Amino acid sequence: MSGNNTTMEKIVALCKRRGFVFQSSEIYGGIGGFWDYGPLGVELKRNIKEAWWRDMVSGHDDTTAPAGAPAAYSMVGLDTSIIMHPQVWRASGHYDLFSDKFVDCKTCKARFRADHIHDSACPRKPSKRPGEHDDCELTEPREFNLMFKTFIGALIDPNAEAYLRPETAQGIFVNFKNVLSTARVKVPFGIAQIGKSFRNEITPRNFIFRSREFEQMEIEFFCSPEDSQDWYSYWRDKRVAWYVSLGLKSEKLQLREHSPDERSHYSCGTADIEYAFPFLEEGEFGELEGVSHRSDFDLRSHMEGKLIREGDELVVERNEHGQPVHPGSGKDLSYFDDRTQTKYIPHVIEPSAGADRTMLAFLCEAYDEDAIPDEKGVKQERVVLRLHPRLAPIKVAVFPLVKKDGQPEFAAEIYRDLKKRWNVFYDQKGSIGKRYRRQDESGTPFCVTVDHQTIEDGTVTLRDRDTTQQERVKASDLTRIVEERLNI
Amino acid sequence: MSGNNTTMEKIVALCKRRGFVFQSSEIYGGIGGFWDYGPLGVELKRNIKEAWWRDMVSGHDDTTAPAGAPAAYSMVGLDTSIIMHPQVWRASGHYDLFSDKFVDCKTCKARFRADHIHDSACPRKPSKRPGEHDDCELTEPREFNLMFKTFIGALIDPNAEAYLRPETAQGIFVNFKNVLSTARVKVPFGIAQIGKSFRNEITPRNFIFRSREFEQMEIEFFCSPEDSQDWYSYWRDKRVAWYVSLGLKSEKLQLREHSPDERSHYSCGTADIEYAFPFLEEGEFGELEGVSHRSDFDLRSHMEGKLIREGDELVVERNEHGQPVHPGSGKDLSYFDDRTQTKYIPHVIEPSAGADRTMLAFLCEAYDEDAIPDEKGVKQERVVLRLHPRLAPIKVAVFPLVKKDGQPEFAAEIYRDLKKRWNVFYDQKGSIGKRYRRQDESGTPFCVTVDHQTIEDGTVTLRDRDTTQQERVKASDLTRIVEERLNI
Repeated sequence: MSGNNTTMEKIVALCKRRGFVFQSSEIYGGIGGFWDYGPLGVELKRNIKEAWWRDMVSGHDDTTAPAGAPAAYSMVGLDTSIIMHPQVWRASGHYDLFSDKFVDCKTCKARFRADHIHDSACPRKPSKRPGEHDDCELTEPREFNLMFKTFIGALIDPNAEAYLRPETAQGIFVNFKNVLSTARVKVPFGIAQIGKSFRNEITPRNFIFRSREFEQMEIEFFCSPEDSQDWYSYWRDKRVAWYVSLGLKSEKLQLREHSPDERSHYSCGTADIEYAFPFLEEGEFGELEGVSHRSDFDLRSHMEGKLIREGDELVVERNEHGQPVHPGSGKDLSYFDDRTQTKYIPHVIEPSAGADRTMLAFLCEAYDEDAIPDEKGVKQERVVLRLHPRLAPIKVAVFPLVKKDGQPEFAAEIYRDLKKRWNVFYDQKGSIGKRYRRQDESGTPFCVTVDHQTIEDGTVTLRDRDTTQQERVKASDLTRIVEERLNI
Repeated sequence: MSGNNTTMEKIVALCKRRGFVFQSSEIYGGIGGFWDYGPLGVELKRNIKEAWWRDMVSGHDDTTAPAGAPAAYSMVGLDTSIIMHPQVWRASGHYDLFSDKFVDCKTCKARFRADHIHDSACPRKPSKRPGEHDDCELTEPREFNLMFKTFIGALIDPNAEAYLRPETAQGIFVNFKNVLSTARVKVPFGIAQIGKSFRNEITPRNFIFRSREFEQMEIEFFCSPEDSQDWYSYWRDKRVAWYVSLGLKSEKLQLREHSPDERSHYSCGTADIEYAFPFLEEGEFGELEGVSHRSDFDLRSHMEGKLIREGDELVVERNEHGQPVHPGSGKDLSYFDDRTQTKYIPHVIEPSAGADRTMLAFLCEAYDEDAIPDEKGVKQERVVLRLHPRLAPIKVAVFPLVKKDGQPEFAAEIYRDLKKRWNVFYDQKGSIGKRYRRQDESGTPFCVTVDHQTIEDGTVTLRDRDTTQQERVKASDLTRIVEERLNI
């Protein structure tokens, strides 16, 4: 890792210590590029995915054009399989084109991505780059498809080859007609999907930022060709606003419009939503989400076959007999628009987000260190995750001050009551200061403490994570107060 | 399919027609054993998973022993990777033992599971069994590991072999220590996980009941050896009650305790929660969930290495040099119980449910046909999904009777208001009878219709899916009334 190593190392350590993220198969020495989400991590990731689903799909108002949108539109969900028919990936272009070049060192057997050689280190002499050491012997760059290959059925046989999807998007495109004929939607409409994807990265790195197994939150938005640029602008702005609404408020978040020569061969516009992760050099940003105008490329590919660019045109790639090299399905995926009485292949705007990267960005933005006075007024350093309340794995923690005098029972009653609404944690172990500190590190917005006064007058202390201010409130008012302050 | 084919075919057709389940990669002719969940299916499955997570994990009360439980306990979640270190599967026994025998027909190239030959059909002459046709030539049964194999890195190389997990459970076992040291839990406690698993079934069949890619909802519950039988009983009963609470109330649900010789070699008790699916013969049941007492088998395997039975003992399998054939991690996965001041390897109770099978059971139980009077009083047949309100993909549908007189605007306002709380559908297309029928088939508990009277007096009709009774209520009371009736 380059960039702000110290901050990144602290965040990785916190993730392990508090049970956000563990290395996969850690007791067997781990496996590169795979990560497990612990008890707090699974709740944080669930909250991110739930916020996305709610804000993009289930909470979307189909009846009115939102601010900035050319028209009202519908949004529906989908959940397609990770292993699909192999022809899907041939027609889409992934079989031929979804590859990286790699270089091996014949001496030490290390493998590098050809385009990362300049910022990689020789494993035997980390101060040197690969190839700079005396007896390094690098191979020529070789092509390597990033799709994980597997075999369906009992034999390892080319006819049984299948792939783990490298993106959830294709599952949406091949279901376009199914959704259109069952969900009572009309163009413009969007299909949203959350699910795992797999890329056989040569050098996975930077924690959960670039892993081999990861989760995507993708929308394919189908619209008429003439409205497509307006929809592209709409989705680009809407998606940036979503990150800001969940707490990515600093200048570390940026929107970067790709230059025309940086785009894919089919794209009429691409913007990356990026975050200045601490593992990056000053001024560098890492991609959280790409918002892309994909024209009719995907639906056409699955109709006609793999497309290539010829001059300004996208045409089906054909062999010497004039046959498509990778045929499409032959199904008609065009749309008859009864508003304009025209038939067209819908254009697609694709906001494609990485759930793991998004989680990492929220963790990095939330990570803070400050100093607060302890019970004796002495300033103590603490680590605090200032997560947005919607994302916080635990919303409220409830503590009895001591394990006697009816305090645990009273606290448990409050815990059960709040638990009807939110994820709530009950903790009666350790000093009260330590219990606060644990919840600060877990990002818990509120702590409720039951003490001797509670038993007398029914009041508790309510502590705010960010200000560490404590106030006495009636236990019977807690649900209302917490509801107001969470404001979610 | 054998059994009640007609009912099963109707359910499969409904799933396609209403957008619950599509064949994966359908436009490319499909791919056996893989299914996609459409707009209604994804919501139904999300609701099932959410109900399980809420009832088992986030809504669980850590502070009090529930009815029937030996003690209070904690539950936490986890989300581990699908691809894990290959040694995990060697130590667990899956690499050596997780296999089926298959038979090929050399004449027609069809493949059959050896244990399913007796109820399979010859593809060329379906009235005969494989091998019964004149020129059938079957191979000897051959072993075939059900784990999907893949390769990490650029080369197809035995050292790079990895597997898609055939169960989520092992991801929990290898994280036992990580959870213990970060989540502030003590034995007894449970770890819950929802996620995809993959089994390279030779003959996937019966719709989403036996597919190659599927989703599990698994709990590994860690307890002391002496309490383990009590916990086994507790979980067995609790899990049956969960299905009943969500609507599997008929005699089609049963609990079947395995006989000792039917159990796995490590199990001290296994019970299957089963459902009489319509594709089965009369009197047959299919497994929804297995609740298994796994003793200390899993944690011991990951400490010491692959275990085999020797007489009454489970011992590490060793080669001729006395080395474990498949070593474990060598990490100490035992637990010091400060209550009893003893150290032991916790025993495990595993309630392991299939999310797709569970969804299919809910669909089968909910599927009904009846006849109801139309607007003219003539009885019309209808199909209705009597899904539990918690599971229904859409809770309320809102219709303007006609697309004029301010009705669409009034209806849209109601829609937006209800949508703050629930998944709500707005539909203004087609006759009102057809719109009701669509929602009946989708399992929507309530329909709200805005008509001319609404504009005059602010009342709407509220229609109940099951009784089809309609009543006039004030639009302003809708949220309260729906909330009371949904009772979720």
